[in-house]
Amino acid sequence: MADRSVDSRQFRTALGSFATGVTIVTTRAPDGTPIGLTANSFNSLSLDPPMVLWALAKTSLSREAFAKAEYFAVNILAADQQPLADLFATRGAEKFAELRCDTGLGGIPLLRGCSAVFECKTSYQYEGGDHVIFVGEVLEFAHFGRPALAFHAGNYASVVKNPAARSAAAEAAVPGLESSFSRDFLGYLLGSAHARLMERVRGDLERYRLSEAHYHVLMFLSNEDNLSLKELTTLTQLADHQVSYRTLTDLVIRDFITVSGGDYPSTRARLTPDGHRVALELGASLKAAEAYAERFLGATEAQTLKMLLRAILHAMPPVAAPNATDET
Amino acid sequence: MADRSVDSRQFRTALGSFATGVTIVTTRAPDGTPIGLTANSFNSLSLDPPMVLWALAKTSLSREAFAKAEYFAVNILAADQQPLADLFATRGAEKFAELRCDTGLGGIPLLRGCSAVFECKTSYQYEGGDHVIFVGEVLEFAHFGRPALAFHAGNYASVVKNPAARSAAAEAAVPGLESSFSRDFLGYLLGSAHARLMERVRGDLERYRLSEAHYHVLMFLSNEDNLSLKELTTLTQLADHQVSYRTLTDLVIRDFITVSGGDYPSTRARLTPDGHRVALELGASLKAAEAYAERFLGATEAQTLKMLLRAILHAMPPVAAPNATDET
Repeated sequence: MADRSVDSRQFRTALGSFATGVTIVTTRAPDGTPIGLTANSFNSLSLDPPMVLWALAKTSLSREAFAKAEYFAVNILAADQQPLADLFATRGAEKFAELRCDTGLGGIPLLRGCSAVFECKTSYQYEGGDHVIFVGEVLEFAHFGRPALAFHAGNYASVVKNPAARSAAAEAAVPGLESSFSRDFLGYLLGSAHARLMERVRGDLERYRLSEAHYHVLMFLSNEDNLSLKELTTLTQLADHQVSYRTLTDLVIRDFITVSGGDYPSTRARLTPDGHRVALELGASLKAAEAYAERFLGATEAQTLKMLLRAILHAMPPVAAPNATDET
Repeated sequence: MADRSVDSRQFRTALGSFATGVTIVTTRAPDGTPIGLTANSFNSLSLDPPMVLWALAKTSLSREAFAKAEYFAVNILAADQQPLADLFATRGAEKFAELRCDTGLGGIPLLRGCSAVFECKTSYQYEGGDHVIFVGEVLEFAHFGRPALAFHAGNYASVVKNPAARSAAAEAAVPGLESSFSRDFLGYLLGSAHARLMERVRGDLERYRLSEAHYHVLMFLSNEDNLSLKELTTLTQLADHQVSYRTLTDLVIRDFITVSGGDYPSTRARLTPDGHRVALELGASLKAAEAYAERFLGATEAQTLKMLLRAILHAMPPVAAPNATDET
């Protein structure tokens, strides 16, 4: 407690444990040049009068412009604006050259596609160590409801709503989740969630008397026609539904696909018009089930879920070599 | 642009689009009473000297204590400290009665289990509308590396690191992910991720000649012994691996379980010592695979993934009634 020297790198790391959004603060220099820089030192301050604050390094090239400006705008970045954050964090970059902006109070550039924007009149500039604190009264603002970009522990991040308030009730209502095996095991949760989605497609599969292997072949061909059996085997093996020569034969007999190009593994498959129709119908059922789940989760949450699942697929490549067998 | 009146509720909503961490700021009143309140208006300010700031409502009951205090501490809350945030956001609550705290500069209470803590000497108090800005010089700090609690759009939230920098490269390296079906369809991603985890258990299953249905029975019994066939059917049906009387018979013949209590569905199953041993071994394989995936994702990310999967299970309860069939 006696040592008052603070290690700067460790101090930054400790500060990083406080999550923030990411903003670009903009203004216009006395000569008309548009000015903007990335800042996460923004925060709300007062409701009445409406005020916000942010802090600017005294060494910033933009310091004079902000010190003299009557107005500034805080653009709260949306989740997909990380490239803008990087651009405006670069000292001396050509920031506005390629950018279409709107114009706010005092001609200040307002960025498009943000999550929210606050147009402010500078009220105070306060001393703050190696930074200056700018306090602005909010004269205009807009809110676009887009998912937000966040910053935490030195990385850009997404914020995922905690269902903590509802989770106790929600999880109690999920049969089977009382068991710690079914609550906490990723393998079980993944398998169950997959089963629930596929259940919504099962009716269609039964109606057309199709297996999951058939289903995956139709889906992949609908996405990219004329795949070889080898390609289909690789794609579907990744989803744990092995496709065999037999699977293709079944679909040929049903007149859903045609094959060409000789024997395994060079056989290539294409959808027939009937196959196209069925694939569209099955795809629509799955899309409806996914849309239902995604609405429940929320847009950022659904994107985050997919991103995390792709990360698992990246971390754990398939162990076994794809191998076409004769079972459907 | 002419209307300068700001709708207070809309202003709050717009401010909510900026994500923040959550802190509890503590101090000690002149009479020795420990003081603390939840604030998300914290931010870093200066590196040299190390300074942080936060804002306090002028109407706060704690205003005088903070105005007079020489020191304050900012406790950055960890992801599991939401109850503390709620407690310290309640006006007039008995906040410290049940709490074990450490003691910082000037006898200030420091909370335990936080993500980071900053002990500060008040440098400035600035006018900020209906709030006062407190600027403190950081004299001591500690960083515990715990996942952080966040606040966004009026909800507590978790922050999930964006793999944006690595994602393009990572996803290019995932065979099969070039197809938009396999990249974007939740059903496919869930099935594939599940398959990858189960692949790591497959060796053990083959060695013991066990199906996934056998596997799930052993896992559930290992978690809670003496389950009825009906209970096992419900639990495993949720994971899409139906258990039948035949499944149990197989396991009895192998001497992994014993059954009692008469015919279906009242038959109850218990693990034998051999069954316990195998269940532990299989459980260890799955745990190892999960630990590998979770290390790759990161702790918050893995927790978030499980939370999102449980949300899907909640949103999509099983369609079909559990139904024990005679197939394994």
